[in-house]
Amino acid sequence: MTTNRRSGPHRPATIPDVAREAGVSRSTASRALADYGSVSPEARERVRAAAQKLGYRPNQLARSMITGRTHTLGAVVADIQNPFFAGVTRGITDAARAAGYQVLLANTDEDPAAERAAVKTLRDRHVDGLIVSPASTTDTAHLTAAHTGGCPVVLLDRRVPRLDLDSVTVDNHGAAQDAVRRLLAVGHRRIALVSLVGNDAADDPVDPGSTGLARMAGYRAALREAGIDDTGTYLRTGAFHGQDPALLARDLLDSPAPPTAVFATDSLVALGVLSAARELSLRVPEDLSVITFDDTDWARAVRPRISVVAQPVQELGAQAVRALIARVEGGTHPPEHTTLPTEFIERESVARARNRA
Amino acid sequence: MTTNRRSGPHRPATIPDVAREAGVSRSTASRALADYGSVSPEARERVRAAAQKLGYRPNQLARSMITGRTHTLGAVVADIQNPFFAGVTRGITDAARAAGYQVLLANTDEDPAAERAAVKTLRDRHVDGLIVSPASTTDTAHLTAAHTGGCPVVLLDRRVPRLDLDSVTVDNHGAAQDAVRRLLAVGHRRIALVSLVGNDAADDPVDPGSTGLARMAGYRAALREAGIDDTGTYLRTGAFHGQDPALLARDLLDSPAPPTAVFATDSLVALGVLSAARELSLRVPEDLSVITFDDTDWARAVRPRISVVAQPVQELGAQAVRALIARVEGGTHPPEHTTLPTEFIERESVARARNRA
Repeated sequence: MTTNRRSGPHRPATIPDVAREAGVSRSTASRALADYGSVSPEARERVRAAAQKLGYRPNQLARSMITGRTHTLGAVVADIQNPFFAGVTRGITDAARAAGYQVLLANTDEDPAAERAAVKTLRDRHVDGLIVSPASTTDTAHLTAAHTGGCPVVLLDRRVPRLDLDSVTVDNHGAAQDAVRRLLAVGHRRIALVSLVGNDAADDPVDPGSTGLARMAGYRAALREAGIDDTGTYLRTGAFHGQDPALLARDLLDSPAPPTAVFATDSLVALGVLSAARELSLRVPEDLSVITFDDTDWARAVRPRISVVAQPVQELGAQAVRALIARVEGGTHPPEHTTLPTEFIERESVARARNRA
Repeated sequence: MTTNRRSGPHRPATIPDVAREAGVSRSTASRALADYGSVSPEARERVRAAAQKLGYRPNQLARSMITGRTHTLGAVVADIQNPFFAGVTRGITDAARAAGYQVLLANTDEDPAAERAAVKTLRDRHVDGLIVSPASTTDTAHLTAAHTGGCPVVLLDRRVPRLDLDSVTVDNHGAAQDAVRRLLAVGHRRIALVSLVGNDAADDPVDPGSTGLARMAGYRAALREAGIDDTGTYLRTGAFHGQDPALLARDLLDSPAPPTAVFATDSLVALGVLSAARELSLRVPEDLSVITFDDTDWARAVRPRISVVAQPVQELGAQAVRALIARVEGGTHPPEHTTLPTEFIERESVARARNRA
């Protein structure tokens, strides 16, 4: 018996171990542990004592085979190192634990192939359901297949219009429009948007499903309201995965008629913008006003403190868990799209526009 | 059959479903799917086609019951929203996936009770092993119990001297000593350490097991080398969970003979120090030099850029996974303590000391 131990001094105790220790048959031990059938009170007590002595743990795998439920949720996020997703993941694990579920975590790096592989693996592990921040608004067949195959899916942070799945997002269009309106209100006209998602095809019809694209649409709507019809000149999006936001921003800020304000679509982009401004000796906010999506620890601590569009990150994760558990427990209601409010937090990174050559 | 569907339009296909679709008995379907016993080639093909049509997924739960392995690791981390643990978690999930394992994630908020609960839940889920950043160096009975009970445990980021468990850490003592020596070398004598872990009992013997305490010991060793015997005056540690680092730092920087340099034991503390310096109109590095543990995105982007002790965060997670899998696969070698190197990255937050009243 010592040869097939898994590791450490002991392998986990099994029902035969408990039976041997209690001096009863395996079937008696089994019945006593599962609390069914006929077992004498004395044998039941001996089995209970043996189970405690050996540290026997009731086999949740066996229970899962009977109920078809594992009380495990899969979370497939784009980038756990992005403070937004770190906060969302925190919200997911806390809310899941409170509801008696555990969370299997996978990171996709915004790669649709990694996402497909993660969904397959998590389904093979029989998760009860999946929370996914989809890497693509078009490559979604694996999500539909999971959902119709009995593994409900809730979309987090990103809505996909053609998918009949629950989603939990913020009002990205409205929040971006509001932020850009604030820049317009203090005289800015050359306002840039810097984002790592989407593509540079400024004239493409905008798909409002994706978070980045929704923010872009909100940006454009605000510019158009202000009579600025050319909404592509200061739009910078990263067509390539892993592009350095500082390079993207530097190229933009170093152009002949540079923007006087930048709206960054996430905090990592904002750091790139600040870094580029610094390299070019531009002062924030005197030479360049900056607003970013996502309130981070650093945005409150740096000088100047950065004005932000704050998202309720933990609540996004918690709401996604609640929506998913409602499906796991049999909910057959039509897909629900939950939109949580954002909050604009004014700090010191926006100033009145001045002319800059 | 429609009444007991879990959710969505279909529940997952079972062996009886496949048998019905293929027009064979359950036992034939079972044998064909598991590829054992006697099945005619024709029946095998019908079962294969039916399984594909219904999206039948071989039951990994059943396989796990036979092998006793779930290919699932538990990761119990202190705070996923701290960039250090976000990076470590990224390293854990990536390395686990590469080795064919999935990761169940739990967050403890540095609370030993939450850690005990997480370890219990993850063991009930039959994880093959656990990676834990222990919240306490004394409240560790649950870790010993898991390990000796057949669920191997690898300690991450924090070593516990009396525990015979593998550990993966950096050389916290040496890295802190090196950072403080650099401050001493440019003339600083009133050097503070600000940390949220540990306690204020400056004369207590230091337990080198905990990361925070090891950094404190390194700090003290550097001061003593320089002939500074009173190593408690500028030591600020947070005895209470959730204490605001900015308040701790403010109190320190606003004292009658304030420090001219601060060594922060993590990036969240450093943000608190910068915030407090800003409130008191102290310029970094002219009035206050700052070095922090952990290289974050913001440390490279803020002005001035912050000099840091960089830890190999993803590699810490990956090494812990490798150490754990070696145990899961039956390794019975003595406990291994892996120490990864840190790197001091010099930027612009340290200046030569000047007198400050």
